[in-house]
Amino acid sequence: MEHDFQVAVIGLGLIGGSFAKAIKEYTDYTVIGCDTDQKVLQKALNEGTIDRALTEKKEIGRADMTILCLYPHQAVRFIEEHLEAFKPGSLITDTCGIKRYVVEQAQRLIGRRDLHFIGAHPMAGREFSGYDYSIPTLFAGASMILTPGEDTGKIEFMKAFSKALGFAHVEVTTPQQHDTVIAFTSQIAHVLSNAYVKSPNALRQAGFSAGSFKDLSRVAKLNETMWTELFLLNRDCLGYELDMLIEHLSEYRDALKDNQPERLKALLKDGRELKERIG
Amino acid sequence: MEHDFQVAVIGLGLIGGSFAKAIKEYTDYTVIGCDTDQKVLQKALNEGTIDRALTEKKEIGRADMTILCLYPHQAVRFIEEHLEAFKPGSLITDTCGIKRYVVEQAQRLIGRRDLHFIGAHPMAGREFSGYDYSIPTLFAGASMILTPGEDTGKIEFMKAFSKALGFAHVEVTTPQQHDTVIAFTSQIAHVLSNAYVKSPNALRQAGFSAGSFKDLSRVAKLNETMWTELFLLNRDCLGYELDMLIEHLSEYRDALKDNQPERLKALLKDGRELKERIG
Repeated sequence: MEHDFQVAVIGLGLIGGSFAKAIKEYTDYTVIGCDTDQKVLQKALNEGTIDRALTEKKEIGRADMTILCLYPHQAVRFIEEHLEAFKPGSLITDTCGIKRYVVEQAQRLIGRRDLHFIGAHPMAGREFSGYDYSIPTLFAGASMILTPGEDTGKIEFMKAFSKALGFAHVEVTTPQQHDTVIAFTSQIAHVLSNAYVKSPNALRQAGFSAGSFKDLSRVAKLNETMWTELFLLNRDCLGYELDMLIEHLSEYRDALKDNQPERLKALLKDGRELKERIG
Repeated sequence: MEHDFQVAVIGLGLIGGSFAKAIKEYTDYTVIGCDTDQKVLQKALNEGTIDRALTEKKEIGRADMTILCLYPHQAVRFIEEHLEAFKPGSLITDTCGIKRYVVEQAQRLIGRRDLHFIGAHPMAGREFSGYDYSIPTLFAGASMILTPGEDTGKIEFMKAFSKALGFAHVEVTTPQQHDTVIAFTSQIAHVLSNAYVKSPNALRQAGFSAGSFKDLSRVAKLNETMWTELFLLNRDCLGYELDMLIEHLSEYRDALKDNQPERLKALLKDGRELKERIG
């Protein structure tokens, strides 16, 4: 690893705090941290999660790498506001759950400047948010999705960096492919879980639940501010998945209401076979 | 425990096999077994899962307790066909995932005979079926739901018996309450999982999935013959849950398509708060 390589972690919430802690734990990089909450920043300094606080705009110029652990609009705004301050040749990355918007805006802003941007989505989280829940092992065994867009300059570094922090698998893809698939694997699961618990019978489930209820309701407790932003920035893809799911559910509902065992069984068989193919 | 108490386990699949094995493991009862598959029956005898095979109808007359580990229609048919052969004063129970149909039919058939029927739904299972996957610890830590209907004669025995086999919690309720809540906690989860994997993007998820995809798709691999029967016997309750879920999902879909952040955020907040109340 390079000597005195400096990493700026912008936003010390669950993800940013965990990045800072993992970098301190698994690399010999210097960590510069920044958070709008002064108590969090002070705690991160006291605990040694960060080596130094980023207080002035120009200080970002010392960072060889900047990790934006912010919501999408904030992340783009940070790039915009620090465009002239970033260290020439340095790498900027993010941790947002959608990629087209962030990568397009970052590339537009960077233009022909000597800066590298690689979109990143660490597939890890907890049912709690904030610095206090951040842990250095958050990424252990998880997948990291990288969307370099047209900028592939630092991709090998990003892969090695991800592995060093504990990610078990690094997937390199396009922003479009990321947003398409993530609408299915993650976003719709959050909508579904959140919609599921709205049945009046959700309040009567104690004692009647095996694994299914737990599985389905697990992610209902979400941060609505963050997810609203993520969902709206992926409207086309998530809208497609929601249409698809509602359409499929209606088929089962109709077969059930029309009391058609063969049709219902065929629908269930199709799903079972698909699941066997997917694994 | 009583001396030479004989239990007949009818159907030695995943659930029946596990009941037989758990009874041999955790009680000193004699287990009589029965299965339409002669190979399974022989294997259960060879492995000591059962002490004796039930070969003739009249032999059920020696059983102090009969556990019907069959699909609902088969379970009712078994009672009908053995009505005059059951031991007077003995207890009959089942393991079906719906309770109104089974309890009503059992009570109708039994009438004023000196027989006890208590509906039972062990909230345990595996993603595989058949005798070969049965294990004595299948019920360890699970919930057992009992629906005695009007017959409460043997309820204390059934509670103690369930605890002895490893169930951590025994819930006593009405068949109606069972079917209402089970449509929400278990049945709709199976429909949903089975419908979810039908998105074309399900085949592209490798590398993009965290816990949500795994949770949501887990029970898609279901036994469509059994679930078709269970769903149709609970048409009203499951139909209600499906209508409810489709309606709620449509609200999120519409807020998303109409690009209304405040409406979407309010929907997500409602779901998050409900989940916090449910726990």
